[in-house]
Amino acid sequence: MLGIGKTGWIEKERPVCGPLDAIVRPIAVSPCTSDIHTVWEGALGERSNMILGHESVGIVDEVGSLVKDFKKGDRVVTPAITPDWGSLEAQGGYAMHSGGMLSGWKFSNFKDGVFAEYCHVNEADANMAHLPPEIKPETALMLCDMMPTGLHGTELADIQFGDSVCVIGIGPVGLMSVAGAVLRGASRVFAVGSRPVCVDAAKKYGATDIINYKHGDIVAQIAELTGGKGVDRVIIAGGGAETVGQAVKMVKPGGRIGNVNYFGESGDAGIPIPDWGNGMAHKLIAGGLMPGGRLRTEKLISLITAGRIDPSLLVTHVFRGFDKIPEALELMRQKPADLIKPAVLME
Amino acid sequence: MLGIGKTGWIEKERPVCGPLDAIVRPIAVSPCTSDIHTVWEGALGERSNMILGHESVGIVDEVGSLVKDFKKGDRVVTPAITPDWGSLEAQGGYAMHSGGMLSGWKFSNFKDGVFAEYCHVNEADANMAHLPPEIKPETALMLCDMMPTGLHGTELADIQFGDSVCVIGIGPVGLMSVAGAVLRGASRVFAVGSRPVCVDAAKKYGATDIINYKHGDIVAQIAELTGGKGVDRVIIAGGGAETVGQAVKMVKPGGRIGNVNYFGESGDAGIPIPDWGNGMAHKLIAGGLMPGGRLRTEKLISLITAGRIDPSLLVTHVFRGFDKIPEALELMRQKPADLIKPAVLME
Amino acid sequence: MLGIGKTGWIEKERPVCGPLDAIVRPIAVSPCTSDIHTVWEGALGERSNMILGHESVGIVDEVGSLVKDFKKGDRVVTPAITPDWGSLEAQGGYAMHSGGMLSGWKFSNFKDGVFAEYCHVNEADANMAHLPPEIKPETALMLCDMMPTGLHGTELADIQFGDSVCVIGIGPVGLMSVAGAVLRGASRVFAVGSRPVCVDAAKKYGATDIINYKHGDIVAQIAELTGGKGVDRVIIAGGGAETVGQAVKMVKPGGRIGNVNYFGESGDAGIPIPDWGNGMAHKLIAGGLMPGGRLRTEKLISLITAGRIDPSLLVTHVFRGFDKIPEALELMRQKPADLIKPAVLME
Amino acid sequence: MLGIGKTGWIEKERPVCGPLDAIVRPIAVSPCTSDIHTVWEGALGERSNMILGHESVGIVDEVGSLVKDFKKGDRVVTPAITPDWGSLEAQGGYAMHSGGMLSGWKFSNFKDGVFAEYCHVNEADANMAHLPPEIKPETALMLCDMMPTGLHGTELADIQFGDSVCVIGIGPVGLMSVAGAVLRGASRVFAVGSRPVCVDAAKKYGATDIINYKHGDIVAQIAELTGGKGVDRVIIAGGGAETVGQAVKMVKPGGRIGNVNYFGESGDAGIPIPDWGNGMAHKLIAGGLMPGGRLRTEKLISLITAGRIDPSLLVTHVFRGFDKIPEALELMRQKPADLIKPAVLME
Repeated sequence: MLGIGKTGWIEKERPVCGPLDAIVRPIAVSPCTSDIHTVWEGALGERSNMILGHESVGIVDEVGSLVKDFKKGDRVVTPAITPDWGSLEAQGGYAMHSGGMLSGWKFSNFKDGVFAEYCHVNEADANMAHLPPEIKPETALMLCDMMPTGLHGTELADIQFGDSVCVIGIGPVGLMSVAGAVLRGASRVFAVGSRPVCVDAAKKYGATDIINYKHGDIVAQIAELTGGKGVDRVIIAGGGAETVGQAVKMVKPGGRIGNVNYFGESGDAGIPIPDWGNGMAHKLIAGGLMPGGRLRTEKLISLITAGRIDPSLLVTHVFRGFDKIPEALELMRQKPADLIKPAVLME
Repeated sequence: MLGIGKTGWIEKERPVCGPLDAIVRPIAVSPCTSDIHTVWEGALGERSNMILGHESVGIVDEVGSLVKDFKKGDRVVTPAITPDWGSLEAQGGYAMHSGGMLSGWKFSNFKDGVFAEYCHVNEADANMAHLPPEIKPETALMLCDMMPTGLHGTELADIQFGDSVCVIGIGPVGLMSVAGAVLRGASRVFAVGSRPVCVDAAKKYGATDIINYKHGDIVAQIAELTGGKGVDRVIIAGGGAETVGQAVKMVKPGGRIGNVNYFGESGDAGIPIPDWGNGMAHKLIAGGLMPGGRLRTEKLISLITAGRIDPSLLVTHVFRGFDKIPEALELMRQKPADLIKPAVLME
Repeated sequence: MLGIGKTGWIEKERPVCGPLDAIVRPIAVSPCTSDIHTVWEGALGERSNMILGHESVGIVDEVGSLVKDFKKGDRVVTPAITPDWGSLEAQGGYAMHSGGMLSGWKFSNFKDGVFAEYCHVNEADANMAHLPPEIKPETALMLCDMMPTGLHGTELADIQFGDSVCVIGIGPVGLMSVAGAVLRGASRVFAVGSRPVCVDAAKKYGATDIINYKHGDIVAQIAELTGGKGVDRVIIAGGGAETVGQAVKMVKPGGRIGNVNYFGESGDAGIPIPDWGNGMAHKLIAGGLMPGGRLRTEKLISLITAGRIDPSLLVTHVFRGFDKIPEALELMRQKPADLIKPAVLME
Repeated sequence: MLGIGKTGWIEKERPVCGPLDAIVRPIAVSPCTSDIHTVWEGALGERSNMILGHESVGIVDEVGSLVKDFKKGDRVVTPAITPDWGSLEAQGGYAMHSGGMLSGWKFSNFKDGVFAEYCHVNEADANMAHLPPEIKPETALMLCDMMPTGLHGTELADIQFGDSVCVIGIGPVGLMSVAGAVLRGASRVFAVGSRPVCVDAAKKYGATDIINYKHGDIVAQIAELTGGKGVDRVIIAGGGAETVGQAVKMVKPGGRIGNVNYFGESGDAGIPIPDWGNGMAHKLIAGGLMPGGRLRTEKLISLITAGRIDPSLLVTHVFRGFDKIPEALELMRQKPADLIKPAVLME
């Protein structure tokens, strides 16, 4: 990213490795919708000459003097969110906001990202995870953002056994929310989307009902499918700010809404007051950035190795070669019919 | 209430007592801001010839054949919310929404209220509490709505040891939120209000800082007083729908907002997206009707008898005689400078 | 049950139907290990001429005057636990203890059970669920106790994404704990058992590792399989009181132990103090009776109809005819090699 | 501590300051019962030539190159528990067990303690807090262990509005549990103890009932005072392993037991099975080491500065001079009638 709306190659110094840090050489990366937002919508504000990318799998090239659990040559996955674990926010349970709101997100935000020959990982022992050989690099990329974000939606919605759940948006994050809802004990899962490739994947991940927003108001469709009762939980994983109001309308009193969608709007997300029981319906609204760090990544890795979830379905396009990154990025921007998520193998 | 905007006396049949029910003769009642909303703002929609009032202390006059723990002559307090405890909503932990959103609220909503010679209590064993002799009737009235609602705000905000808390609105409910915040371990408590009688009470209940909204934007005042950090928790207990946005702005990432204010607006409460971290700030928004029923009422009674909280400060005006109800209601509507909450002793 | 150690047929009056109650004619029943405990081990103390059984599916024969959602002829499943929903315990979130510890359990405990022509259900609207036609009666029987108890173990253990879990005991309840652990997001699931029929079922339900207690100390086996780290969560679903200490030893600091096993011993379950971090290891011990009632049963039904869990694997033996109950009970007592759980279809 | 049972002065090198660390010069310290356990009961096993003490207030003498928020000359309080915040345990919410069970406790356990001219603090930015001038050093010492431990008991017991609570043991930790229970909304608080100085303090901190274990079985006393119902919550803050069984007996079904007592026994703490509802009573047992670190300490400081709690009542004896430490330690060992907690001002 050279500036808003402009991308290109840039030559930079190799990053410096502090005592707690690591320098990693990416072997696989994936562009994210956030990268698109960052460059073409200016979602983070002006950034100049910043290397993009926050999803990568790589090989450790150097570690700082205080790093204990990693060494040069280790294959690692680094999540998009790499908190400062000693911060007050992390001590309070919200490491993703260490140093300020959303500030656990460092790659291609406060520092250079991973579409590079080398990238810098802060607090390496706490923010990287060893990648087991049985997980392919392109699959492992889904551990950086898609899977932790999607699954966090189900945590924010606090799904319980037998809950009916509506997942709004079935891009790669929403698909992981569908799979995650099933893995938390949801019974009926309504998936809101329209692209056939995503609809197919949603069914494979356990959606019982598909709701196409092109076929009318999704709130009305949910009402019809549930006999007017609505759902126990809603996960917002796509769409604009209007989804918040839709979620409030379709959730039952005592229900919960988990948002993991990044809203680009600068205005308000409206809560419709009468549907919110005039403020008293116990329709809880929780939205949050994915938790990052090593423990979380290891836990998600274990879900894959135990066969509980298979994120490889998300990776519809695999490119080979560092120089294919712009092509993958452009693909992400254009969103062709058969795309869920692209990966670039660097070699 | 004869219709929207019209009040007057009405003669009705004594209510019928089902097998689980009780008929209670009120000995003290209190008008609530909700009554004002109901009559003069049509908050519940049209209601004709409905007896108002949902805060009462009384003497049991009759009990149904299946009632075990109460008998004629018992002094009881009945909370404003009297759920159907076998309902699915109650089984799910949200008894206040039994039978539908907010439908645990029956008095002066779905059935006649308590400004009457006799009133009907459903599921008497589950919805009334014995009133200990050491609590005066006018104080006990605060157990019906003010205290459970105010304290529920602190529960929704999930206050932890040492949290800084802002309570928006210091009418009788907000004052109980101030007291409740202290009783849940808050350290600094910012109370937003302006009326001197309420400010005095807020300080007595433990507010450390008073914020007068007439002196400028309350968000800016909080920012200044906290060195720009904001607060850990916000309780909304007064004001219009704009308070939701103010709360989102003043709360820290990872913070919680508890709303117990009844918003009369028919539009939206806006969540300012950038301040909400584009949906990802973990600024949780929880709003809900007070829990009712016997157990809750007994627990709150025990707080009074153990000396942990003294709601008697709220009762600034005491009337004597059934026929003083209109006067008390009018007082509530006019809100003179020295009023927090009126009570009417029926005899 | 005629007395401790004695069973036989007994002629009794048809139970009386109160205004909130229902009389149900069982069409399928299942004996439970608890019945064995009750009769042959005197687990509940002396009981004379009490009809056994608390797992039944039936047809409504009569409903009380206040029952709204059920009518004569409805096919229903009634859970083993049928609380008094207005009780203080239920209001506090522990309906299974309504009226006293464990007192939500009424069938074959405080009143006659379901191995009868007619059985009595208290608070019918709140304690029965409509049985969808697609679920076979013998499968539906698993909704009464096995499935809610097994799944409650996973709730008590509060399983999170990627947790490693050990399930001690893989009888029918433990098998549902295995399935439930997977449905709450467990990755690796260690199942402790030895009977081949149960081991096979455990693998089908998602166990990744089988631990045979006959092959040595299960704590040592877990230690070996986890590189000395132990597991995040333990569910106790079988065994004697020594399992509590084993669970404390194998769980990590910060871990949780969920017990749904009914311990018949009259002495102590020992917590090994050093392994418990001298009281300070944050190894939480939670044990509890299954939640009952209609909402829970409906939620579990929805898990079956959505295809999330299939309890029919548990039913290894199906008998036909009311008079086969003693045979089924005897089978349960003898536990042949191929038995998980028997069912008796009454007609 | 020279060895088990032996104390004396020892000359050591000044500790080395790593890049994240600080070297602090204590200006006030306090011996703790744990020190007594460590030396005279060998609670931690053999330790030779280890400097004792984990409660200190001091002045920063040196900071590492990566420390940002502290500088030489700052007055700081350092809690007894100073976790490694990047560890997996800390990421999982149990920083006090970072690096292994209880291993967040470093002073006078894994490294030299604070009864020294200089002491070493790991991860200084994350583990120290600035001490406001309005809090006296001897009072601030209570922030190191007594107050965080006592208050953690109330968190483990998860006290709710109006709960009845029994606090077993009213030494300095138990007294903070009493105060903490009140600050979490307890109504009736039963305090179990006998020493007059502690009984007086317990009443000042809000105990409503004093139970003297010398006057008979405390379970029976609780039963009598509660009409046989027992209490909602129990906090164990003193006594031997038998207190676990007592707590199980006195707590209601659905209740919680929070333990912050360090059990020195090497055997078992027994859970009485029948009183535990045969494993099914939902009587939850939670025991854990105090959370440490900077955020927690700052929150507790704010409770003092906001006037919510005054731990200065605990400090009954103040010594002046570094050389008075042995005297203070001996006092702690002898526990004279008028002692709650001694402090030593180093200068």
